[in-house]
Parts: sequence; C-alpha cells; structure tokens
Amino acid sequence: MKCEIIAVGTELLMGQIINTNARDIAKELLSLGVGVYYQTVVGDNEERLSNVFKDALGRADLIILTGGLGPTDDDITRETAAKVLGLPLEKSLIWEKRLEEFFSRFNRPMVEINFRQAMVPRGGKLLLNDRGTAPGIYLEAEGRVIILLPGPPKEMLPMFKEQAIPLLRDKLQGNENLAVLQSKTLRVMGLGESAMVEMIRPLLENQGNPTIAPLAKGAEAHLRITARSSSPQEAEELISTVAAEIRNVLGDYVYGEDEENLEFVVAKLLWKNGKTLALAESCSGGLLSHRLTNIPDSSRFLLAGLVTYSNEAKINLLGIEPGVIDAVGAVSAEVAEKMAAGVRRLCNADIGLSITGIAGPGGAVPGKPLGLTYLSLDADNLKFTNRYEFWGSRLEIKERASQVALNLLRLYLLGMLKST
Amino acid sequence: MKCEIIAVGTELLMGQIINTNARDIAKELLSLGVGVYYQTVVGDNEERLSNVFKDALGRADLIILTGGLGPTDDDITRETAAKVLGLPLEKSLIWEKRLEEFFSRFNRPMVEINFRQAMVPRGGKLLLNDRGTAPGIYLEAEGRVIILLPGPPKEMLPMFKEQAIPLLRDKLQGNENLAVLQSKTLRVMGLGESAMVEMIRPLLENQGNPTIAPLAKGAEAHLRITARSSSPQEAEELISTVAAEIRNVLGDYVYGEDEENLEFVVAKLLWKNGKTLALAESCSGGLLSHRLTNIPDSSRFLLAGLVTYSNEAKINLLGIEPGVIDAVGAVSAEVAEKMAAGVRRLCNADIGLSITGIAGPGGAVPGKPLGLTYLSLDADNLKFTNRYEFWGSRLEIKERASQVALNLLRLYLLGMLKST
Repeated sequence: MKCEIIAVGTELLMGQIINTNARDIAKELLSLGVGVYYQTVVGDNEERLSNVFKDALGRADLIILTGGLGPTDDDITRETAAKVLGLPLEKSLIWEKRLEEFFSRFNRPMVEINFRQAMVPRGGKLLLNDRGTAPGIYLEAEGRVIILLPGPPKEMLPMFKEQAIPLLRDKLQGNENLAVLQSKTLRVMGLGESAMVEMIRPLLENQGNPTIAPLAKGAEAHLRITARSSSPQEAEELISTVAAEIRNVLGDYVYGEDEENLEFVVAKLLWKNGKTLALAESCSGGLLSHRLTNIPDSSRFLLAGLVTYSNEAKINLLGIEPGVIDAVGAVSAEVAEKMAAGVRRLCNADIGLSITGIAGPGGAVPGKPLGLTYLSLDADNLKFTNRYEFWGSRLEIKERASQVALNLLRLYLLGMLKST
Repeated sequence: MKCEIIAVGTELLMGQIINTNARDIAKELLSLGVGVYYQTVVGDNEERLSNVFKDALGRADLIILTGGLGPTDDDITRETAAKVLGLPLEKSLIWEKRLEEFFSRFNRPMVEINFRQAMVPRGGKLLLNDRGTAPGIYLEAEGRVIILLPGPPKEMLPMFKEQAIPLLRDKLQGNENLAVLQSKTLRVMGLGESAMVEMIRPLLENQGNPTIAPLAKGAEAHLRITARSSSPQEAEELISTVAAEIRNVLGDYVYGEDEENLEFVVAKLLWKNGKTLALAESCSGGLLSHRLTNIPDSSRFLLAGLVTYSNEAKINLLGIEPGVIDAVGAVSAEVAEKMAAGVRRLCNADIGLSITGIAGPGGAVPGKPLGLTYLSLDADNLKFTNRYEFWGSRLEIKERASQVALNLLRLYLLGMLKST
C-alpha cells in the first residue's frame, strides 16, 4: 500500500507553522508496514488542492489529508475532496447533536457555519473528535482509501492512532506483504549521547534486526530499537532481547521506556514507597511543580510546591535567615539546603527538594555565571546538595534544572543517592 | 514569482526527521515577496524524484530542492535534476580543490565518489559551503530558477540566506511583479474562533489586499493580516489600516500582536502599574507561576507562587479554615476567594490570584464535573471570583485555567474588571 500525505494550510506554506503531522502520520504508518511515497503541502485554495488531490489519487492507494476541516470559509478540504470524488455531502445527525451539546455546555453561541463540520461525503465513516469540533472522515472510493483529519496535532494524532489505524489494519488483513514493524524507545538520563554510544558501541556495531538508533533529546538521550517481523509477537521478542542487553550495559541510566517520562517514573516510585514530597523552587519558577502535577493522581504524593521567587518569600515563607542570604547570596549551596529543609518542615513532608539558580538572561555576577544552579534534597536519612552549571536559554535552564531535580528524586528513591 | 520547495529524502518520508527546511525557506522567501505554492517531500528514488521535479517545472517559476547532494549512491538530486533539464554535468575545479583540501586537512581518505560533489550542471553557479562538503547550485533553465541545497539545516540555511537570497533579489529587481509580503498577527482572548469570525464577518467578506485569516490556537484565536505591496512602508500601512478596523470591532478581546503572548502582555502591565503579585494554585499545579517566570525580569513583580495542592497546604499555608473545605469542598468559590486573599496577605502583595479546580481525569463528583474551576482575584479595590468549566485533557485544562487567569489579571490591570 502506497501512501501520500497532503497537508492543507497557507500557514504551512508561509512557514508560520511546521508540518509535524506528516512526520507523526508517517511514523505510525511505518508500524503497519505502509510506506509513505509522497508528502505534499498546499494552501487553502480550491483549484490547487483539487489538482494535488487528483495527482495523489493517480499515484497512491491511501491518501491522508490533514487540515482545512474548521468552520470558517477558508476551510475547504471536506468540500473539495467530496467534489473531486463526485460524492454529495450529507449531514451526520450524530455530529450535529454533538456540536449542539458542545456549544450549549460551554455556553458559546452556535452559528450556522458551525454545522458545516457535521457534513460527511456519502459513504464516509465519521472519526470522532473528543478534543475539538471537527470530526475526521474515513472513506473508500475509486479503489483508494481516503482519510481526512483535522489540522491541530492534538486533535489529529489521537484520532489517527485510535480510530484510523485500526480501520487501516482491518483493510490490510490478509495482505501477505504486510510486514510488522515495531519499535521501543529506552530513555536514558545522566549520560550524554556520545558517552552512551561509547558504552554500547559493540551492540551498535553488530546491529541487524532489530536496529538501534541513538537520539539526543534535550537533557536526555534516547535509544530507539526497531524490529521487523511477520508477527507482533516475534517483533516483541526480538526487541526484548536487545533491550535486555542494553539495560545490562547501561544499568540505571535507563530510567524508562517509550512514553514514560521522568516525572511519571518518579511518581511511580513515590507511590510505591509511600513517600510525600514538598518543593521549593526559585529559578525554575514552578516548572517542577507543573511537571509533577501533569501526572494524574500526583495529589497522592505532592503536598505543596512553593515558588519562593523573591528573597522576602524565602525569608518569610521558608524561614531562611536574612543574614544567610546577605552573606552568601540566594544562589548558594547554603540557601538551597535551607530551602529544602525549610519546605519539608513547613509541609511536614518526607522529602523536601529545592532549586535556586540564575536562569538569565540577566542576574549573572562575577563568580556566579548564567546557569549556575544549586539543587538540594532533604530527607530524614539523607541530605544532598550539589552545584550545577546549565546552559541554554532561560526556558532551557529551567527545563534542565527541573530534569536534574527529578533525576535526583529518582536516584534517592532507588537508594542510589549518597549524602553530601 | 511562484515557488515550489521539494525536499528529497527517505528519512523525511518515514518520519524520522522533520522538514524544517521547507519552513525556514518559506519564511525567508516571504520577506522577498515570493509566495510558496507547494511543498513536496519525495524519497531517494530517481523515477519519483524526476516526476515530482517535472510537475514543479510545470507549475512554478522557482523550484528549490533540498537534500540528496551527499557523496553516496542514494544521493541523486544533482544527477536527476541535470537529466530532467537535459544538461551535462561538468566538474568544478574550484570545488574539486576545496574537497582535496578538506580531506587532507581532516586527514580523511578521499575516494572517487567524493568527487561527485564537485559536479555542476552546465550553466550553474556554485553556492559555497563552509560547513560541509556539498556545495549548492543556482541554475536558470527553461525559464525557471532552480536552486539545489544540501539537506542538513546547518548547511542549508546559511547558504540559502547568504548566497541564494541575494541572487534571487537580483533576479527580481526591476521585475514589476516584485511584491513585498508582510504579515501581522492579532492575538484574541476570550472569544472562540467562530464567534470572532461572526463579529468581523463584513471585514472578512470584503477582504482583498491585505488578506485576513482566522486561526484557532488553544485557548486563543488569532487573526493573520497579510499585505502585498511594492514597498515595506506601503505594506505596513495597508496592515495598520485593517488592524485598526479589526481592533475597532473586537476592542479589548485583542490583547497582543505577533510574538507577544499573554504572559508578556500581563508582565508589561504589571511593570507599568508598579504592582506586585502572589499566586495560589491548586489544579493548575504551578503552570501559572511557570508561565509568568518565563518572562525575564518577572522577579520585579512576582513575589511568590504557592502550589497548595493538598487540603493541608491550603489550611496550613494559606490559613483557610478546615470547616470551610469540609462544608463546600476545595473546588468552590469560597475556597478560591480565601486562597487569593490568603496568599496576598501572606506575601504582602498588591494582587492575589488563585485557581482551584478539577483537572482530571479523576476527581469529578455529582455537581462538580471534570474541568470545573474557580478563579479569584483579590486586590485592595476589587474582589472578583468566577466559576468556569474547561474541557480537554488534564494538561489542556491546566493550560486553559492559567490562560483565563492571565486574562483576568490583564483586565484588572486595564481597569476593566468589576467586583463580583
């Protein structure tokens, strides 16, 4: 099955947004064994979209269109596709009802143009959208499979994975060319990409099926293991064997797999150990709290987070003596230590964790460069404080500081952190 | 001048890398007044690349190809383009010398295939590459301009900006179709995309030059105004006139322009008014603090943010009476009100702002649905509390809550919020 992905939107052509949808769709199709042969971007223009769609019908078996399903006049994908295929548009009563409920629930006025989103080319299946008002459409016509998806990635990707992929899999069943491609990502923290590559060099040099691809990802490094096989079970086994070999070499540098990010791994360890946590953040400005509270049920371990941004807040809320800040400055090992101990006492938590640093762009002074950050962890059985220098933009420094803080928590909960 | 960008590379089709080149090239061309009408991605396959290139020659005046200029067998862009245009490849002595120097300098063995990178279709101009071994090529043939660029963004973008753009500018000089294209985005908060479209329908229906494009962006809606003209000044004036008409209709729903996000607009108002702020967050989990502290110098107004995630934290840190939480629950107008007042008092700030709600996926109870959120703002001259129902995933609810909270701050600082 040959696929062409057509992204519709003048904002893509003008370079205002980037076509992540084509990448994400191609990745998903790969695991079905469907190859993408062309990707095209075209503006919100009926003539040009028609021509591009006709070309695709001539050279691909599966055509996926993203974008242009909104309610306004420049959203023309639904109508143009139906016109090219010679199919009338029919109103979906299910979606009409959903739209009415949606607008009444959020108390927003519903206008006539909104109902365009309930129109479906004859014979099309509706792909439901929990995250927005535009449904997708799955259609078979002229011996081709045609899928229309909304443009916003948050709506497009779950719809594609959860609804379109199963329909495509059904369609492909019995096709003997179907090769199963599966992959797993190991997430590594605390090792740079090149140090990681050095450690597993023999495995990388002898790779075949599965393949092993190292990737740098912000403050982390990832390893993607990809196996090709005739059955999911066999692919799974091939991957497990290689994953075990890698884990054998990298040990606890591997902290998680696939979508398990560091905050989720830490949350699981906190749940398992039955420990509670309190945070005191300065330069990271609440990002650490934000990341941990992205995990559902984080209220079971996170008692509170204090963003003590001003010196007054450090003094009045955390009980740090003004003399200490005057003597060594707010960005110092002493203040980090007192923040962690202070917030733990204040919240009566098992673990106190603090971050204080210079996120920039201003604030650096002689001896205290941009990115200088102190992290401290305070628990009954352990006191840990360390100095770091992070680099990058203000946001990158915040991200790296929160990432390293999460890793300290992980190591502590695994019993691998030592008192300083 | 109509442009088509063709990116060549199987790794793009498979979704292993993302096509940032098309976006970056489109952005640069915009400032020359050259519109991109199509973007295409095709694999390292001679037949398919030939066909895509022929299609582009038939519908564009400027064709830019990126990728496939490396030394290995699967790099076929140079040869395929020359073949389609019927031009022989000739060796560039300049580049042959550069390659020899390069390889001897880095002490790497030079093999025959490396010399392929010194081949140029007859009549082509070499675009030099300081960052790699593949030069680019600028070519005029069949009444078209054809530009070949290397795939790695670090090599492609400087080459394009520094060498190809000046050649294109020369080409366009004296061309009466030369148009400057400029655009401005108005950022709208508090109105859905379709409600916004309804309000400015007459302007949308009568648009010509400039064009007006509505876009939904998370909790916001944007309007992109794009003008085409012979001079930047004139384009600027055309945009200003339409922007003023839109602002006239939408009033303070328009909160900012272009890259000015809501946190930045709020920060500017806080600086201007010399007001200090303290935050008490529950369901948003620190996201509001994180967003405000992304603004450099936010320490000039943000005294502290308390993520009072547990009931104990609300009671012990903010002084909320346990009886109140027992009686009406933590997600209630009363608790929101007391959180805002409590954090203001605690931090001695001019403004206290609070968020308490149900971000899900669990936590909903009869009468208190998922997404239910109360926001409260407390200042000397004003007390405001309101009930909201946000929708979406846990992260989306956090984002919408923080977005609406920022907008409350904005309205308060503009003197447009009334006590409830």
